[in-house]
Amino acid sequence: MGTVVALAAQVGGAKLAEGLYRLRGKDLSVIVNTGDDFEHLGLPFSPDLDTMLYTLAGIASQEAGWEPERETHAVQAMLATLGGPDRPVLGDRSLAAPLLRSEGLAGGRRLTQITLDFCRRLGVQARILPMSDDAVRTYVLTDDGAVTFYDYFNQLRCEPPVRGFQYAAAGEARLSDEVLDALHSADLEAVIIAPANPYHAIRPMLEIAGMRELLRRRGAPLVAVTPIIGGKALKGSAGKMMRELGREPTARGVAGEYLRLIDGFVVDRVDAALAESIASLGMRVLTAPTLMRSGEDRVALAQAVLDFAAAIREERAVEVQ
Amino acid sequence: MGTVVALAAQVGGAKLAEGLYRLRGKDLSVIVNTGDDFEHLGLPFSPDLDTMLYTLAGIASQEAGWEPERETHAVQAMLATLGGPDRPVLGDRSLAAPLLRSEGLAGGRRLTQITLDFCRRLGVQARILPMSDDAVRTYVLTDDGAVTFYDYFNQLRCEPPVRGFQYAAAGEARLSDEVLDALHSADLEAVIIAPANPYHAIRPMLEIAGMRELLRRRGAPLVAVTPIIGGKALKGSAGKMMRELGREPTARGVAGEYLRLIDGFVVDRVDAALAESIASLGMRVLTAPTLMRSGEDRVALAQAVLDFAAAIREERAVEVQ
Repeated sequence: MGTVVALAAQVGGAKLAEGLYRLRGKDLSVIVNTGDDFEHLGLPFSPDLDTMLYTLAGIASQEAGWEPERETHAVQAMLATLGGPDRPVLGDRSLAAPLLRSEGLAGGRRLTQITLDFCRRLGVQARILPMSDDAVRTYVLTDDGAVTFYDYFNQLRCEPPVRGFQYAAAGEARLSDEVLDALHSADLEAVIIAPANPYHAIRPMLEIAGMRELLRRRGAPLVAVTPIIGGKALKGSAGKMMRELGREPTARGVAGEYLRLIDGFVVDRVDAALAESIASLGMRVLTAPTLMRSGEDRVALAQAVLDFAAAIREERAVEVQ
Repeated sequence: MGTVVALAAQVGGAKLAEGLYRLRGKDLSVIVNTGDDFEHLGLPFSPDLDTMLYTLAGIASQEAGWEPERETHAVQAMLATLGGPDRPVLGDRSLAAPLLRSEGLAGGRRLTQITLDFCRRLGVQARILPMSDDAVRTYVLTDDGAVTFYDYFNQLRCEPPVRGFQYAAAGEARLSDEVLDALHSADLEAVIIAPANPYHAIRPMLEIAGMRELLRRRGAPLVAVTPIIGGKALKGSAGKMMRELGREPTARGVAGEYLRLIDGFVVDRVDAALAESIASLGMRVLTAPTLMRSGEDRVALAQAVLDFAAAIREERAVEVQ
């Protein structure tokens, strides 16, 4: 078996990454979105990195997958007493990573090194890799101007209609050596785009200078999993955003966002009727149970996705002969 | 009744300040040491300011007076899991003030403004005032060189013998407008030096450019309370430091540190035998119960100290006639 790379973010992405991790352990590298990173109270928060870290370490909350289990809120309560901001609501355990990240960055360490240190400390053998050590910020364009995704989410509560996105500094950001190593691995078997919002979770990674070209040139099967099931995003605002952007808020709409990039697309069984029309976009389609309720669901979907990628590889080999 | 200013730090100093606050409310200003401030994980910690804040707000722990009651340690546990430092041990609730201080300072607010905001939020009517908005750092001189008090306390655990102190940047630090206003109050009745380590708790305040001169020129009775009872510092390392500096580790030794500054000195009843010899240093002496176990003890000592200052003022008035 070779190595696997996932491009992932959000809770859904972390769940699939966990399935892949259980199957492939240290042979998995997960490239994670940092476009939704934000500063709060002077600390550098990387929500997608930390969600991934807690999930692969097996310490993520079952109910609130973005934070550690048994989270408490003593700091937040005292912040409120002292006149601090109400939002975002900070968990106590969730504060540790930003605090150490702040110290590490101030000491000249790269975000990637800091993240790999966390992996080591938590016993995570897969490599969790920020998409870049350079700051990229996703802005949501609204009728009232551009706001960071952080403000769109926390202050505007995702209410204003989305007119577009900007990925500030993505064009100048560099892929880290660790990301390049993962994608250049001699036995790279597949690249998986995990189920997550295509606009602010996955797209920032694809906008880093050279990323799309590298993914295409590399040639390993590139497979995306839908974050939309039966016309609804399980969590988050992908469906709402797609409608506001004039896209079809379905799995097919998501597949369209990855046109000319991916080789295969995984839709849920409830969306089997869409398979043919998605295939007509020029990609292979797998129909599978994509709802990940249990750990077994995560592993089963991961296995299905890897098998799908293997099938694409084999088909290609046949085509070449 | 006029206004009262206390120069205070540490738990003992906060206890006496609380007694004064119960008696005088908004007519009290407490100038607080910031020479022991430190940075940890990129956050600005002001232990003496926060101790004073929690104490006057009535939310300080009974057992550990420097932190809020019902303190928890979820952040610290997660920091340890992620490979963070063991010391200092951070309390969850104790983290809120440094976080908001960090944000305030980054936003261009002065430490004094931030501290007064905390007072307002906590319903503290007295004015808690940092000794300066400029950074002053107390260094402990040891045989192996100069270390910050923070490192001496946390890393060296107060073990190496003390050879002296340095108050870095004290000569260039300015008294804030708020400190000057408090000391220039037209009806200033007394200035109280609270029971605290004379070297790293009180002396940094006296080293700020112009402070000693202003205290002397101002003319209000200046009364200090001993932090040493029966030859022992109740808590902390004042006695140890005095011995290592070749000073007499007694209340008399402390009085000697305030020579040519104070008008009166308060010793504990168990040290009544020292009164005459302290008086021979050129100051009035009051013998009183200085051990503050209960809230009533704090108020009783505060009242005794204020009465002592009033008596000094009256004696002077008689002398002038």
